[in-house]
Amino acid sequence: MVGIIMGSTSDMPVMQAAIDVLEQLGIKTEVDIVSAHRTPDKLFDYGKNAHERGIQVIIAGAGGAAHLPGMIASLSPLPVIGVPVKSRNSIDGWDSVLSILQMPGGVPVATVALDGAQNAGILAAQILGASDVKIRENIIAFKNGLKEKVIKGAASIKK
Amino acid sequence: MVGIIMGSTSDMPVMQAAIDVLEQLGIKTEVDIVSAHRTPDKLFDYGKNAHERGIQVIIAGAGGAAHLPGMIASLSPLPVIGVPVKSRNSIDGWDSVLSILQMPGGVPVATVALDGAQNAGILAAQILGASDVKIRENIIAFKNGLKEKVIKGAASIKK
Amino acid sequence: MVGIIMGSTSDMPVMQAAIDVLEQLGIKTEVDIVSAHRTPDKLFDYGKNAHERGIQVIIAGAGGAAHLPGMIASLSPLPVIGVPVKSRNSIDGWDSVLSILQMPGGVPVATVALDGAQNAGILAAQILGASDVKIRENIIAFKNGLKEKVIKGAASIKK
Amino acid sequence: MVGIIMGSTSDMPVMQAAIDVLEQLGIKTEVDIVSAHRTPDKLFDYGKNAHERGIQVIIAGAGGAAHLPGMIASLSPLPVIGVPVKSRNSIDGWDSVLSILQMPGGVPVATVALDGAQNAGILAAQILGASDVKIRENIIAFKNGLKEKVIKGAASIKK
Amino acid sequence: MVGIIMGSTSDMPVMQAAIDVLEQLGIKTEVDIVSAHRTPDKLFDYGKNAHERGIQVIIAGAGGAAHLPGMIASLSPLPVIGVPVKSRNSIDGWDSVLSILQMPGGVPVATVALDGAQNAGILAAQILGASDVKIRENIIAFKNGLKEKVIKGAASIKK
Amino acid sequence: MVGIIMGSTSDMPVMQAAIDVLEQLGIKTEVDIVSAHRTPDKLFDYGKNAHERGIQVIIAGAGGAAHLPGMIASLSPLPVIGVPVKSRNSIDGWDSVLSILQMPGGVPVATVALDGAQNAGILAAQILGASDVKIRENIIAFKNGLKEKVIKGAASIKK
Amino acid sequence: MVGIIMGSTSDMPVMQAAIDVLEQLGIKTEVDIVSAHRTPDKLFDYGKNAHERGIQVIIAGAGGAAHLPGMIASLSPLPVIGVPVKSRNSIDGWDSVLSILQMPGGVPVATVALDGAQNAGILAAQILGASDVKIRENIIAFKNGLKEKVIKGAASIKK
Amino acid sequence: MVGIIMGSTSDMPVMQAAIDVLEQLGIKTEVDIVSAHRTPDKLFDYGKNAHERGIQVIIAGAGGAAHLPGMIASLSPLPVIGVPVKSRNSIDGWDSVLSILQMPGGVPVATVALDGAQNAGILAAQILGASDVKIRENIIAFKNGLKEKVIKGAASIKK
Repeated sequence: MVGIIMGSTSDMPVMQAAIDVLEQLGIKTEVDIVSAHRTPDKLFDYGKNAHERGIQVIIAGAGGAAHLPGMIASLSPLPVIGVPVKSRNSIDGWDSVLSILQMPGGVPVATVALDGAQNAGILAAQILGASDVKIRENIIAFKNGLKEKVIKGAASIKK
Repeated sequence: MVGIIMGSTSDMPVMQAAIDVLEQLGIKTEVDIVSAHRTPDKLFDYGKNAHERGIQVIIAGAGGAAHLPGMIASLSPLPVIGVPVKSRNSIDGWDSVLSILQMPGGVPVATVALDGAQNAGILAAQILGASDVKIRENIIAFKNGLKEKVIKGAASIKK
Repeated sequence: MVGIIMGSTSDMPVMQAAIDVLEQLGIKTEVDIVSAHRTPDKLFDYGKNAHERGIQVIIAGAGGAAHLPGMIASLSPLPVIGVPVKSRNSIDGWDSVLSILQMPGGVPVATVALDGAQNAGILAAQILGASDVKIRENIIAFKNGLKEKVIKGAASIKK
Repeated sequence: MVGIIMGSTSDMPVMQAAIDVLEQLGIKTEVDIVSAHRTPDKLFDYGKNAHERGIQVIIAGAGGAAHLPGMIASLSPLPVIGVPVKSRNSIDGWDSVLSILQMPGGVPVATVALDGAQNAGILAAQILGASDVKIRENIIAFKNGLKEKVIKGAASIKK
Repeated sequence: MVGIIMGSTSDMPVMQAAIDVLEQLGIKTEVDIVSAHRTPDKLFDYGKNAHERGIQVIIAGAGGAAHLPGMIASLSPLPVIGVPVKSRNSIDGWDSVLSILQMPGGVPVATVALDGAQNAGILAAQILGASDVKIRENIIAFKNGLKEKVIKGAASIKK
Repeated sequence: MVGIIMGSTSDMPVMQAAIDVLEQLGIKTEVDIVSAHRTPDKLFDYGKNAHERGIQVIIAGAGGAAHLPGMIASLSPLPVIGVPVKSRNSIDGWDSVLSILQMPGGVPVATVALDGAQNAGILAAQILGASDVKIRENIIAFKNGLKEKVIKGAASIKK
Repeated sequence: MVGIIMGSTSDMPVMQAAIDVLEQLGIKTEVDIVSAHRTPDKLFDYGKNAHERGIQVIIAGAGGAAHLPGMIASLSPLPVIGVPVKSRNSIDGWDSVLSILQMPGGVPVATVALDGAQNAGILAAQILGASDVKIRENIIAFKNGLKEKVIKGAASIKK
Repeated sequence: MVGIIMGSTSDMPVMQAAIDVLEQLGIKTEVDIVSAHRTPDKLFDYGKNAHERGIQVIIAGAGGAAHLPGMIASLSPLPVIGVPVKSRNSIDGWDSVLSILQMPGGVPVATVALDGAQNAGILAAQILGASDVKIRENIIAFKNGLKEKVIKGAASIKK
């Protein structure tokens, strides 16, 4: 199961793409709002216990001075995927990207592109697919779907 | 009393300036290493209890994806001053600055210049000086000292 | 009392959030327009005398080559909070942020996030709360309100 | 087994930290030089076949217009971790970071900090640890080691 | 003949300007969608064989972590012109520019301005014009047209 | 006469080039240290009175949150030339450049390149040369000297 | 007389502010379109001869890789004021600013803020005012007008 | 023949790599110093006449506000390759890159990486190779040499 958390309900329109692609790949998700700055106790609880209740990968999205992914990575032994969100108050996304990506030695966050929640979902699936043949097959099928779409696009412009 | 914390002993050469200027201004300090990412339990304990044991202002220095100042601000009711440190792994200091400055609504960090630990110390003194006449007088004397230095510099180049 | 100044009436829509949150926290404010570049005499007068008439903390907002917060910090012994405003002519806010944040040694400005006027208000309250139990209680209540909102948001997405 | 590749032998001083930490965590590695731009055939061969010969996670390091991690992610169903290297010709690392991080929808690269090869190694271990209790225990022990180091540092500055 | 490729049909509105100017200059084009990340086999095939079927210059447009121009340059002996596209997910175009421009020694991409597809077309014509007097004359006529337009603009504002 | 001021004696190695080129062009200079942040009274006095004692153009150099040129422009009716200095605490010079360049409407600062003090001197001479034939002749001779140097350089590489 | 030139009629909406403020200050202007890249002969002619026909200061506006101000400064002995224009194809104005500001030693361009045409006009007036008492008086009156506006704004928010 | 020009003899250490690789590929070069800002007449003469005396491609290197490549492209019908040089006064190379890359529609400069003179040489060869089988064969051999070097590097780390 993949835990998907974000700092605010206002991150939902971006983070929905992670939920959707994981559903499409047949993987269960659990979604919650956890604010590093407004609900620090929930942050601690979540980070320390997620792996105890069956979560295997955590996706955390946040914007601005985005501390949620890094703090969860500090508290949990699970792999943590960070989604920098270009929130309303962000300086063109640079703060979101740098405060998630530039983690110190010892505490990695697997960072994806700005607003790249779909890729966070796919990466979570690839992590689970490392030990699950069925998931890996779904990923290969998903990638073939992308290829088909490009090939159709190519055909359409040639007409 | 001013609590001064930093993410790593490697931040000490920068943060020393805060300790020095506060000593010069006659203000007691307590110095500690608290890593948001390597000692999250200590972070929580420090943030929740600092104000209980007489600390009135907290200065927190960190570099890279610098979460220490913001997480302390999340946990403590005290004013928190953040010092972005241009650490070895920082991208020219931009990550340090943005991950301290760009805090979301509700949880301010009083951010000073990159490697600006001396100013963090002075700002802490100004905060205490809001209700302490002696400290405010020390600050005015300190500022006069700066002015004298500039005036001497001006005199020296005129010779 | 908190003095709130800004370079132009066009900064009002951003700066209003500082006025509102201070009112909510039960703190008196005095609001004025002071332009570093268009009314330098008023700037000098304000900076030199604010502390004489009962102002304890100054919040100064400005955009572009934003000199107001730093010049006030140069002239006043009070703690000065700077709000970088993303004004119409700013280069995505970078000029506003850097010309407020990067003050030289000796003259700190407590800088908050781009357009972060609400946080400036909260920080001012925290500074006053260092010696005022009632204000500190109001801040704690305010932070609890933020937490409640996140918890309600979390509940809403689980339905 | 973790496959570690890089664009040039000149990336070795940075990438060595990934090899070292994985060895420390008891995980087998296979190291190779694969240049997206100078050996494209090897790139294709590596990307298409790595998972066939027992590699479960790929770490790819590159600098400048760094296409190696993204192209491997395009060719392989495995999770790919990208290490942006601040190589000699890089513009302060920005090109390395952006050309690895900003992958399009469908093809994620798990990006770590600039020159963050140690974190790439730890992240690879966390991915394997999702289905291997022994590895997860090693990671927890490793993190405890980091905590000890910080606590010793804190003790040293208090003397 | 000039081969024009792009990573996605969504790049077409930008890339159309290359097609249009080449037609205007009397040069044949062949347009296709080739995604480095979604259709890597097509990428390899295109890069290795374009020069065999009469293509003399390749124009490749892509956005974000834009690997198409550089990978084609890696695979083909032909001159490759790269057009950084400011796509929807790009960080203000910086990722597009840097991941095309900053190619390592040995594998140049002739990069034009952000969204500068018209200039890519003109540059392709100039390359062909190096050995074709008719094309060079068309270019000179085209440039004269630009000059006329500026002169008319100058006349219009003087009225 | 050209007034040359700077925020600190540490700016002298950069600003010396302005003094030297003005001397070379036969123009009198007056040099002083005026710190916007440490000697605000001197700043006000200088800005308000410089034109009264024969100064016709002011060159002001400063680094970091560089407020000296803009504040002088606010106080004086004279043309003010700003030299952004890449001082020790500057973030690669960006703060110096933006806090001098991005002045609001009504209060221009004629900004030159980062550390471009020589050009500030030449620009001051050009301003005086607008009404002084002798100075303009000196400028033309100076520019011819630059041309000679390039031509000699060209000759040297051809050997 | 002030010569005002720009690279394209599309720069007119920005540059109009220079024309307007100079008219308001009682200074004659001559406006023209001169494109460094599309009409290089006109550029040369303009730069070499402007001072012969009574022009005393040149204002040049351009965007993107903005070469017009610098090339005019190379060709003319007059002071040249550069206005970086945030044109449609500019990367948020950074290219416009840097390609005007960062002139090499010997050839200054007096650069004003991004889209700062009004300030370019005022600066031109200040340059002429160095030897014309009437113009200097107009500038002082203009600045007083700005001050009045701020004071009215301050009064309005106090109601 | 390839014409190689640069703004100053100080650009020679960077530009030498273009001369060397062209010699290695059996292509004649002509090297000169042409400064857009210090020798504008030579610039005009060079740009207008290069194609008349047998030059087929021009490589132009410059730093800071780098106008040489763009002005040559404005004056000549030949393809122009621009090399952004990270000169002593450049702001980390950003000014050099943007003032060469961001040319307006109609006047392309084929830009290579910062300090990427070797790639400029290879690109010039590729342009000539479009109509010269011998040169194309040399390029293919050169690229094979690069591949061999990577393969040897890969072998060395496996020992």
